Amino acid sequence: MKIQVVRATMPYNPKIGTPITALDTPSMVVDLSLMESNIDKLFSHLLTTGIRIRPHLKTTKSVALARKLVAAGATGGCVAKLSEAEVFTDQGFTDLLITTVVVGKVKVGRLVELWKRNREVRIVVDSEAGIRGIEEGMKEAGVQEGKIMTLLDLDVGLHRTGCQPGEEALRLARLVRQSGYLELIGVQGYEGHLQHVHSKSERRERCLEAMSILTKTAEALREDGHAIRVVTTGGTGTAEFCVTVPGVTEVQPGSFLFMDTDYRNAVGTHYSNSLTILATVISKQGPKCVTIDAGLKSLTTDSGLAECKTPGYTYGVLGDEHGSLSWTDAPDLEIGDRVEMIPSHIDPTINLHDSYYAHRDGIVEEIWSVDARGKVQ
Amino acid sequence: MKIQVVRATMPYNPKIGTPITALDTPSMVVDLSLMESNIDKLFSHLLTTGIRIRPHLKTTKSVALARKLVAAGATGGCVAKLSEAEVFTDQGFTDLLITTVVVGKVKVGRLVELWKRNREVRIVVDSEAGIRGIEEGMKEAGVQEGKIMTLLDLDVGLHRTGCQPGEEALRLARLVRQSGYLELIGVQGYEGHLQHVHSKSERRERCLEAMSILTKTAEALREDGHAIRVVTTGGTGTAEFCVTVPGVTEVQPGSFLFMDTDYRNAVGTHYSNSLTILATVISKQGPKCVTIDAGLKSLTTDSGLAECKTPGYTYGVLGDEHGSLSWTDAPDLEIGDRVEMIPSHIDPTINLHDSYYAHRDGIVEEIWSVDARGKVQ
Repeated sequence: MKIQVVRATMPYNPKIGTPITALDTPSMVVDLSLMESNIDKLFSHLLTTGIRIRPHLKTTKSVALARKLVAAGATGGCVAKLSEAEVFTDQGFTDLLITTVVVGKVKVGRLVELWKRNREVRIVVDSEAGIRGIEEGMKEAGVQEGKIMTLLDLDVGLHRTGCQPGEEALRLARLVRQSGYLELIGVQGYEGHLQHVHSKSERRERCLEAMSILTKTAEALREDGHAIRVVTTGGTGTAEFCVTVPGVTEVQPGSFLFMDTDYRNAVGTHYSNSLTILATVISKQGPKCVTIDAGLKSLTTDSGLAECKTPGYTYGVLGDEHGSLSWTDAPDLEIGDRVEMIPSHIDPTINLHDSYYAHRDGIVEEIWSVDARGKVQ
Repeated sequence: MKIQVVRATMPYNPKIGTPITALDTPSMVVDLSLMESNIDKLFSHLLTTGIRIRPHLKTTKSVALARKLVAAGATGGCVAKLSEAEVFTDQGFTDLLITTVVVGKVKVGRLVELWKRNREVRIVVDSEAGIRGIEEGMKEAGVQEGKIMTLLDLDVGLHRTGCQPGEEALRLARLVRQSGYLELIGVQGYEGHLQHVHSKSERRERCLEAMSILTKTAEALREDGHAIRVVTTGGTGTAEFCVTVPGVTEVQPGSFLFMDTDYRNAVGTHYSNSLTILATVISKQGPKCVTIDAGLKSLTTDSGLAECKTPGYTYGVLGDEHGSLSWTDAPDLEIGDRVEMIPSHIDPTINLHDSYYAHRDGIVEEIWSVDARGKVQ
């Protein structure tokens, strides 16, 4: 093969006003009315409680959507990774909590650089090694004044990150207090293991147990002389319970904007599935089976298989780029037909796509970039 | 949250010569010696057969790696999607076969634009509707001369795309012959369902059956007056068998460059696992369990769980951004330790990352962009 210079093509760039029927596929489309309804439902309820809402932006990875959430009443945002915080800070979103501990010399170096230009960034710590690493990074960078706002990450049952309540929490909080570089402002405890518990009463009960660990630890730290003013927790599946607990100051829901089949199966249809992956039937593979152009690179499978928005069709994975739809009693699908697929897990599915095409009644009204796509560091 | 303009940060941009111990994590790293050995092994064997090697670039999505394959003897490349063909064409790789049928008005419009500036692009068709759609697109674009090089996609047992051998194949080939816009140059039949058959003898036997369908169809088409000069097939798990079949003219292996645990479990260790995801231990969660910073957004799970390159540790998924490593008899892992994870499925894992950091003996020697990352259209 000869390698030669060829005039670059125009990137695919559909315009506002395009009907979604004229979008290429696979494309990530959002029903704006449903999404706005989801935002209204969450904020109209939670804002009345006086609890701060700090949505988790790792779901949407979108600056445009973060602005919408701020407009609705969000008082800051969460991100999972430092690289996401860099992206959002670059766009002027400074009140950010990085919900994952920052560990490793390179990552800490990036954190210090970020903090120098964004003093509003908040971090969590859960180990002596982690605290020491950040102190060393600040020292090596020659920081003379100012401290990073720091929350103690507490394990409230997820067993993913977080220190243990009791002695370990007290010991680490004291370490932070002794630090010249960190200022302890609060406690984080994320009950991620409860978000998808199907029984609402069980989800509520177990959530309240986790909240009890969290708020009691916050109280114990206050008794030990720490000025704990932030107690942050909660996700889409539990935020409504968390806000009823005295001592909780903010919640971190993320998926409620779009939902997915996994969340719908667990917490019901209070929030709507507002995001779908538009796909095209590209081949017939039997009397009641067709192949669509959306596979593993368009729809993740870690939380089960996507569902066709139109009832009666069953999705199957046929590889990186292909999926099947089969049926028994639904209308026949033909080559060229288009379908909308509801993702099973919204966060990693969004992370596969570059753009959202948001429509109202089938006409594209807004296009948003997945700004922090792939920012896993 | 006040939204303000903040000076943009320098993007993370490690340099050639960096030790991989100084890379941030998660990062996608490639052992150059192992990758080069994989390329040597495949090409030194297959080139002697006289069969053309057209590697599938949907695996690496990288122009730099495509150049290496051309240097090794590749005579063109495959891509799965039109959007990938656009990216590679823009970089001067023109001898491309799009292995998935191109269906839908928007996609066909993009194809025609691509073909206008790259007459070397090859497509596949498997239905009358698909053929008609491309003809209409060419007509609407006012194409006056020239035909798109077209292969008939044949179902050799995968049941994903492809027409049936026999009458359907003959009928579609005649439709292409009547077309003013398409030139039938060959047949494609991809035995994707056989790539991961664990028994080598069974894989070989079933592959030869599939090749029999493919080459007999090619012969039948020739008898019907079609100038079939390309018979393309094969992947990493079957290419060695395909090249022994008279009538096969080219093979399409992709994963052999890097492999993954799924391929290793099926076809053995002839090719090495040369690509890993570098991760950091960020939290301890028990005496023999730690949390690392690589979860669903760094390592896919559709083909099983990733493995730690160092034996003795078991990986578990803890969410989008986190994984666990547990052990019984291996050395304890501590916060800050770094591990290399071998992906279970290489194509969708690469698609999650922006860059490859290729090292020799631990020193970064080359950095490649995942140029066609996310190009699923």
